[in-house]
Amino acid sequence: MINTSAKERHRILYLEDHITGSAYEFGPIVMDEKAMIDFASQYDPQVFHTDPEAARKTSFEGLVASGWHSVVLATRLLVDHYFLRLANLGSPGVDELRWLKPVRPGDELSVRLTILEVRPSESKTDRGVIKGLVEVLNQAGEVVTTWKGINIVSRKDAV
Amino acid sequence: MINTSAKERHRILYLEDHITGSAYEFGPIVMDEKAMIDFASQYDPQVFHTDPEAARKTSFEGLVASGWHSVVLATRLLVDHYFLRLANLGSPGVDELRWLKPVRPGDELSVRLTILEVRPSESKTDRGVIKGLVEVLNQAGEVVTTWKGINIVSRKDAV
Repeated sequence: MINTSAKERHRILYLEDHITGSAYEFGPIVMDEKAMIDFASQYDPQVFHTDPEAARKTSFEGLVASGWHSVVLATRLLVDHYFLRLANLGSPGVDELRWLKPVRPGDELSVRLTILEVRPSESKTDRGVIKGLVEVLNQAGEVVTTWKGINIVSRKDAV
Repeated sequence: MINTSAKERHRILYLEDHITGSAYEFGPIVMDEKAMIDFASQYDPQVFHTDPEAARKTSFEGLVASGWHSVVLATRLLVDHYFLRLANLGSPGVDELRWLKPVRPGDELSVRLTILEVRPSESKTDRGVIKGLVEVLNQAGEVVTTWKGINIVSRKDAV
């Protein structure tokens, strides 16, 4: 599906282009300390996300990224390398989002996407559903965050 | 649990302070168009999130907020009104996150939190698990986004 030739890299990906079990990796992208604090100050201002000193006295024993920050940084990788090519009609949601390990300042995050399910819609013949496992890894190869994403995708033969 | 008296509003909330079935509402907070475009440009740069003109030609028929933006704005409300008072040891994740309706520029989002489950840990006597349903509502009272959050929370008698 995600081929390395220049031509293939720009081809639109339809439902039929997805194969269950295929896996792809994108990244890395750096979790910068200042960006961590800025993001958390705006959206998730708990001290273990915003204040390096105060964070030392919590169960995290130091600053950790907001779990949502890790999710949206990983989303940026997914969008740049996958969603911008996907014949994407939108996402109804995600399942089983898990924050497994803390993300620390300077961590380098990569994303591994594994296609779990490819299913044509029974009611709408022009589209189908793709379910994918997203695993976010740090520079040590540890899985820090996972979720199962759902997307509605156009069928090629309907375009 | 979340009482209206000034003294009660600042009391720390432990596991025992939660009652299954209790519900609380916080907000509203405005989804500003410029903030929508800025957030999506950084984390979710798909045209229906970043470009009002191009968004008209998509199935969304106009600009819609990144689903993750709705989640983090709602999180800000939850943190300000609930998590900053919670004896919170962290969150292992969330389940069944759903984007049910588009969020448009200028929408006013509120959060309704309903306590689904309060369970002391079997292995660690100083803590327990709280599961809560988060519903994000717009100014018309429509539920636009939902998820089930999980938090590890200290027990009062263990402190």
